[in-house]
Amino acid sequence: MVAQKMYELGTKRSGIREIFEFAMKRSAEVGPENVYDFSLGNPNVPSPEYIKEAIIDLITNMPATAVHSYTVAPGAMEVRETLARSINERFGMNITGNNLFMTSGAAAAITITFKALTEEDDEIIAFAPYFPEYKVFVENVGSKLVVVPAKVDDFQIDFEAFRAVINPHTKAVIVNSPNNPSGVIYSEETIKELAAILTEKSKEYGHPIFIIADEPYREIAYDGLEVPYIPKFYSNTIVCYSYSKSFSLPGERIGYIVVPNEVEDFGAVYGAVAGAARVLTHVNASSLFQLVVARCAGKPSDISQYEKNGKLLYDGLTAAGIKCLKPQGAFYLFPQALEEDDVAFCEKAKKYDLLFVPGSGFGCPGFVRLAYCVSEETIRRSLPVLKKFAKEEYGIEC
Amino acid sequence: MVAQKMYELGTKRSGIREIFEFAMKRSAEVGPENVYDFSLGNPNVPSPEYIKEAIIDLITNMPATAVHSYTVAPGAMEVRETLARSINERFGMNITGNNLFMTSGAAAAITITFKALTEEDDEIIAFAPYFPEYKVFVENVGSKLVVVPAKVDDFQIDFEAFRAVINPHTKAVIVNSPNNPSGVIYSEETIKELAAILTEKSKEYGHPIFIIADEPYREIAYDGLEVPYIPKFYSNTIVCYSYSKSFSLPGERIGYIVVPNEVEDFGAVYGAVAGAARVLTHVNASSLFQLVVARCAGKPSDISQYEKNGKLLYDGLTAAGIKCLKPQGAFYLFPQALEEDDVAFCEKAKKYDLLFVPGSGFGCPGFVRLAYCVSEETIRRSLPVLKKFAKEEYGIEC
Repeated sequence: MVAQKMYELGTKRSGIREIFEFAMKRSAEVGPENVYDFSLGNPNVPSPEYIKEAIIDLITNMPATAVHSYTVAPGAMEVRETLARSINERFGMNITGNNLFMTSGAAAAITITFKALTEEDDEIIAFAPYFPEYKVFVENVGSKLVVVPAKVDDFQIDFEAFRAVINPHTKAVIVNSPNNPSGVIYSEETIKELAAILTEKSKEYGHPIFIIADEPYREIAYDGLEVPYIPKFYSNTIVCYSYSKSFSLPGERIGYIVVPNEVEDFGAVYGAVAGAARVLTHVNASSLFQLVVARCAGKPSDISQYEKNGKLLYDGLTAAGIKCLKPQGAFYLFPQALEEDDVAFCEKAKKYDLLFVPGSGFGCPGFVRLAYCVSEETIRRSLPVLKKFAKEEYGIEC
Repeated sequence: MVAQKMYELGTKRSGIREIFEFAMKRSAEVGPENVYDFSLGNPNVPSPEYIKEAIIDLITNMPATAVHSYTVAPGAMEVRETLARSINERFGMNITGNNLFMTSGAAAAITITFKALTEEDDEIIAFAPYFPEYKVFVENVGSKLVVVPAKVDDFQIDFEAFRAVINPHTKAVIVNSPNNPSGVIYSEETIKELAAILTEKSKEYGHPIFIIADEPYREIAYDGLEVPYIPKFYSNTIVCYSYSKSFSLPGERIGYIVVPNEVEDFGAVYGAVAGAARVLTHVNASSLFQLVVARCAGKPSDISQYEKNGKLLYDGLTAAGIKCLKPQGAFYLFPQALEEDDVAFCEKAKKYDLLFVPGSGFGCPGFVRLAYCVSEETIRRSLPVLKKFAKEEYGIEC
């Protein structure tokens, strides 16, 4: 009676949802301060004061019709020009408003890009661990997601495994750095090697293989680590950006797609992006928030709390005998579970009200994701519990 | 190299776009006051003061994380509960927040609904004249749009023609009232007859045929005319609503879908809506504007300027000898062209800087659309020009 596949996608219990409901139940039972919910990637840092000021100023001082009217489908040209200048300044690019398409956040941006680029039998490659909705989005546009297994020692890219799956049907690879869930930033070396292989294979197959750079966490990088701007390393790169994390505006769904002029057959690619946005009814991203992000373009994100949280949690995990890479970016740690079965590990942790997400869902079994966009207090209180859990369940004495 | 269909959809020149560019060019040449652009359905009435006040109050007095955080996919429950109460009060319904799914405006709402309901070989029926993007949206989800020719004497529904096209593949009919482009409201009699036929045919075919009620213009109805609330007449109705016109917030993309409990197999339909929203990345409509519309739910729209404009333009068209139905709702008039070829008629009108949209694009050749969401001054100045045009081009003396 309805589309069966849509029904399944809309009603299947999600693991994170179940954890969320467990957290609600336990909070009611033992008090929220005794539940250590590391399951949700919802930024807890409030949006900066300059966002608030920009909204109030725009609403107070601009005519309502100028703020709330339809913009052209790709977004207001003056907004796109402003963002283009900011991108040029930061990354040494040479784009204009004509290279930008405003979107409702990064999820819309990547879905539009998938739809724009792929036809039947095309494949998109992702590198584990990866954001699981990629599969839903790619399959919805009729393509296939091919996953390269994780390189678990450093969560860079396993290029041998990558070479084993790339083939003439490969239309694009999607790169998410800083990475959800690993918290790792792909190094310049990684990007260069990826670019070299894609250049070689594009030539071999006689068509470009695109990089889709999914960058919602770009601004959240620690210890002065640089997040390479991929279009500088590989010309056939399309950037998908969101202000959800950098400006803590996840509920407002505002971001953009960059199609640089250097992309092969720019006109065809940008045109297809416009067509895909049209059929997905993703034209004209929120007009108020277009103006807000233009007003605030280039302003610094406050990542100090995330950085502090990441270090604290990393130290706590290590002290409890749980192995983990140091936080590099985003607000996730992705430690190795203390047993092979990451789902079982998470179930045992739940007995201590420690809520993690199994790595299996990210294509990387044996690991678990901890989101540390929570209060510092939650992390501090969790540290002895982590130790207790590791000791009682796995006999680890630190 | 890219999806060919998307490229075509993204780059094909649209008629309205060409008129827009012509208007820009002529405005520069002869002054904007001498160009009578009736082509665009962009509300020119500013959003009401209570919208401005609500935004400033929310931004000033609520914590930023409460305003801008992710909501659950269907929208914040308290927002949905508030809107449900308002709908119940206005239309005697009995829904709750669980019957609502917040969307990025009506375009997203109908696309989600198409995707939720249809599988391969399914058909959706629209009644001419109809909003041309329906075809794009329906075809994108893999279904077929079947168009019932217009009943040009009153732009209600030609039920004989409807009976000729309804068949076992018909999954839904889409009803847009007040109508873009005809400006007509489907009468209670029309809705009752439509419901009777659908009830009969649903039984005959052994599956429900849904009504999708596309209602962005609901609040814009004149002379005390009632816009029948279709779920009260036909239980398998899904309502798609937008605040673009009622609150003059077209750029903010905020609206909702109502799936009443009375819909057959409610759980399957609502579940499929959730799945479709997920794959189309239309979950979590703007969190700020969710709060704004909840705060302002039920407040009156100011339609006085549209009503005044509609009457003025109607009188002017009639005085120029151009036949037209009286404005009933929305902000469109859909007069009969003075020759059979509506495109040629519009081209001749352009010579007088009178900009109309041919009815052919709405599946109704021989007619033209005039959007009167423009300044009253534009209409006043256009009246003698309308007369001059009709006289010089068609020899009409009034």
